[in-house]
Formats: sequence, C-alpha cells, structure tokens
Amino acid sequence: VKRVLVTGAGGFIGRHALAPLVQRGYEVHAVRRSRSGPGEPAVVWHAADLLEPGAAESLCALVRPTHLLHLAWYTEPDLYWRSLENLRWVEASSSLLRAFAAAGGGRVVGAGTCAEYDWEAAARCDERSTPVRPATLYGACKAALAMIQQAHAPEAGMSQAWGRLFFLYGPDEHPTRLVASVATALLQGREARCTSGEQRRDFLNAADAAGAFAALLDSTVEGPVNIASGESVPVSHVVARIAALAGNPGLVRLGARPTPAGEPAEIGAAVERLRDEVGWRGRRSLEEGLAEVVAWWRAHLGERVHESHG
Amino acid sequence: VKRVLVTGAGGFIGRHALAPLVQRGYEVHAVRRSRSGPGEPAVVWHAADLLEPGAAESLCALVRPTHLLHLAWYTEPDLYWRSLENLRWVEASSSLLRAFAAAGGGRVVGAGTCAEYDWEAAARCDERSTPVRPATLYGACKAALAMIQQAHAPEAGMSQAWGRLFFLYGPDEHPTRLVASVATALLQGREARCTSGEQRRDFLNAADAAGAFAALLDSTVEGPVNIASGESVPVSHVVARIAALAGNPGLVRLGARPTPAGEPAEIGAAVERLRDEVGWRGRRSLEEGLAEVVAWWRAHLGERVHESHG
Repeated sequence: VKRVLVTGAGGFIGRHALAPLVQRGYEVHAVRRSRSGPGEPAVVWHAADLLEPGAAESLCALVRPTHLLHLAWYTEPDLYWRSLENLRWVEASSSLLRAFAAAGGGRVVGAGTCAEYDWEAAARCDERSTPVRPATLYGACKAALAMIQQAHAPEAGMSQAWGRLFFLYGPDEHPTRLVASVATALLQGREARCTSGEQRRDFLNAADAAGAFAALLDSTVEGPVNIASGESVPVSHVVARIAALAGNPGLVRLGARPTPAGEPAEIGAAVERLRDEVGWRGRRSLEEGLAEVVAWWRAHLGERVHESHG
Repeated sequence: VKRVLVTGAGGFIGRHALAPLVQRGYEVHAVRRSRSGPGEPAVVWHAADLLEPGAAESLCALVRPTHLLHLAWYTEPDLYWRSLENLRWVEASSSLLRAFAAAGGGRVVGAGTCAEYDWEAAARCDERSTPVRPATLYGACKAALAMIQQAHAPEAGMSQAWGRLFFLYGPDEHPTRLVASVATALLQGREARCTSGEQRRDFLNAADAAGAFAALLDSTVEGPVNIASGESVPVSHVVARIAALAGNPGLVRLGARPTPAGEPAEIGAAVERLRDEVGWRGRRSLEEGLAEVVAWWRAHLGERVHESHG
C-alpha cells in the first residue's frame, strides 16, 4: 500500500495535492494545524502542530506513512522572507524527517523555492548548474533543509526529491499578493498600483504546482526539481491579462510603485527535469489559469474583507 | 561586560578554549552535559543537555550571554559521519541560535568542518572560492547550520563567524583516532597498522584550534574561516614523527590497511583569513604538538584501557 502523509494540507498548494494523490492510488493522510479540512473524499484528516515537540513522532507512529509530502512552512506574505519562524520550521522539518524514517518511511518530497538559487548567476535557474546561494533567511533555511534531507535519505534507507517553487498564483490567494491584489482592485473599480512590470518571472497555477508535486512524489527522481511553467513573462503581461479579464484596464497604474532595489530582471526556471524525468506537464496555460482566478474572485468578492495592495 | 556561553566546554577543543577566553577578558560560562567540569578558575559551569527541548532557552535566559561559542555536537569517532544524531544537533543548534538572540546575544561563532567543502574541487580549501558540497551527512548538517547561522544573524541584529576545522590531534584524544592510536601502539610495543600514508592532510593541535576560536570570537570577522595550520603534510610524515618520539619505529606498518576508496590525495586549508583578518597564528609547530601528545600518553598509559587501532 502507498500511504502518504501530506503536511500543510490545508494550504495554498496542499489543498490541491490531495485529489491527484488519491487518483494515483495513495491512501492520503492530510495534516493541518486546525481540526478538520475540506471534505475531500478518501482523505483522512489529522490535526497537529508540527512545531510542538513530539508532534511529528506521534503522527508518524500513528499513520506509519510510506511516503511524505512535506509542504508545511511559515508563509505569512512579506514577513516570511526575514522571519525567525524559518528556523523553527527547519527544526520541525528535520524532526519530521527523523520521525518519518523511524516509522519506516520510504520516500520524501519537500517543498523548496527559487529563492535558494543565486539570482545573479542565471536568468534561467537550473538544478544542476545554478549555484545555491540564497540572499534571504527564508531561502537559506529552505536550502539548508534541502541539504539535510538529501544527505539524510541514503543513511535512512530512503529516496528523496525536492520541488523548487517559483511564482505561484491561484484562486483564494492571499489578497496582498500580486495576482489577487490586481484582480480584486480592478473587479472593485479601484486603482491597481503596480511596479513598472518589466521584470520577467515564471508563473505557475497553484493547482498545477500541486499536480507536479504529486507526480514527483510518485516518481523515483532524486534531488532538486524545479516546479515551474518553464516560461518567464513580464509582470506587466500578467497584469494586462488580468485587466483584459476583469475589466477596468484604465485603472492599472504601471510604475506607480518603485521596483524594489536588487530585484533581478528575470527569474526563470529550467523545467527539463520536471518534464523529461518526472514526465509532468502543466494542464493550464497562464491564460486559462488567470481566467480561473478572475472568475473565482468575481464569484467570491463581497464574501470577505480585502486588504488593499499596500 | 563580555559574557560568553561556551557549549561542548568539556570536549576535545572546548576544554582548551576556556583559559584563552578568560585571558581575553570574558566572563566565561561553560556548558557540558554532566555536572561539573575541570577546575578552571574564573569559569562558571552549567550542566545542560542541549538536545532537551527548552534547555537552550533556560540557559540563555539565565546567563544572558553577549557572546556564544557553540562547539557541542555529536562526535563519536567513525560513527559521526553518518549518524542520524547529526539532524538532532542541527535542530538543537538552531534552537540555541534563537534562544541566544532572544536573550539579547550579540555575536556567535560556530564550529564547522572541512567536510563541508567539495574535496574534489581543490587540494587547498578556500573559504571564498571552494564550493560547499558535502559528501557526508555530518558535512551536510554542518554546512546547513552554517547557512542558517549566516542568514539568521543579520535578521537578529547579530554578527557571526564559522570556524571550519580540519584534522585535529592533541593530548587525551579518543584512542581510535590516528595520532592517539599510533602513539599508544608504539609506546606499548604493539604494531601500528596504517594506510600507505601518502595522503596529505592539515593537522592542528586541539589547544591551538581552541585559541583560534577564542581569537575569532573576539574579532569582528564575519562568515566562514578555516581553522588550520595552513600546511598539509603526508600522513606518513606524522606517523614517522610519532615513531621518532615514541620509539619502536620498526613496529610501524605503512600500507597494512587499505586507503579507503574516495580518500582525496590532499585536504589542505587556506589560512589567509585566520592569519590576516583574525590575526591569529598557532603557537606550536607540528613537531612540538606531537611531542606534547607522546609525552602525555607516556605519562597516562596504564591509567586507562585502550582500544586497539581497528
């Protein structure tokens, strides 16, 4: 039996990972901090705070997972780059790796980030040739965990992979993030104040990212694998597409906000490993993904209070 | 007041670090797992198991150190390279960093290893140019902690440095390690079975390593600093010097043990940072250091049971 423990299962990616894992034949055990999760059929929910000492041991001893998909982390927008919570998540993740191994686990996939790479070194980050040289505490803690996981696995008789995420968007995103803030502003008839938008980024829909993680877990591929679309587009292009879908293009204010110092002109991803070794391709074009998001916000606006795009 | 917390203070390096820190004007708080330490004047001893949840917080809240010299780790000879205990020490060390910062700490120095470097890349490992690419779980966990410490310090308003140790020897060394095993065998009239000894290594006396750590802590140097002699010598040369000092050179069996596969021909250290930036030079030549060790074993043999050099 393939039995997977998914952490961060209520999160932005995690919630989309459960159905693909069920489809691939896994018995899915989903962990989140609060009591119960969304009513995904054939998923067993567990409530656990992985930052509590002993929580990972108890959970792994109970579930005895063969597979671990570890997506949980501190993700408060803006704050997560520099927060000391990153250290607590390294500690909790290392403890989880030990508990998973001790309970007989066989394969682990962790969630990394493009912020592990040296962005000065390459416009298109490649798992094999681009140096790991994180510029932030978040990137450093993720890179440190990747290094630990990679060296731990063979000593514990396990296999492992590490999915490095780039720029994500999707329905129900935190309202201060780029795509959500522009979509909600325009749908509500407010100004969308943006940077110049010339910088190029690789955008991927959160549901596609989750599908890629499920495929990676279900493969035998080892080590870091970029999880991205493989195509970087100017941020202004994304903003323009949202405006075309949401209406009110006249309210877009490109250049109204300064581009932060040190922002690289391009952060792209090599996706040969994901495409050729894992055998995964995204289902949605950027066009389709953005249409889903705008439709979702159109249906949900008014149900919740939105913060403005500071 | 400069108040330093020294972890691993009863260990092979730590025990030699206390006096130099006192000499540099520090109020020295020494931590070891068991109750009391050697009667070093002007040192306050604390008993704490840093692997216990909450131990680091209690200790830092009590001592309120301005400086942290973190030497504690899992060091069981041979086993430490691959042990899962390495993960527990990453967790404990990260937790210690957070506790030190929360208690108002200002500067931390951690203990790294030459095993963080890619030994294929250079015969003389350099802090700035030699890639960090550990081949072992021990090296990976040390390199991961270095990355975390370096990124954490600025966010916590601290300064930090990381001393990378190479090959150490000294009095009272674990009897299975190279220098101790050859010295004790020859002093006891047993065969000293060695590899061919052609491989070159950088050897440093443990007391000199401790002095270098004290100097590094007392400096403002940031980041990784090799702690080594700067000179790599063939292992056979070290063995021959021991034989000259201990007698029984006819019992040395070079080539009696195979050189392990993948052993690099040379593991040397660039010491420009230590010498020019920290301003530290070793007190003992290899000759003098080995003479001390042989004299120590000559005085202590018979007091303890020795394992043979397997």
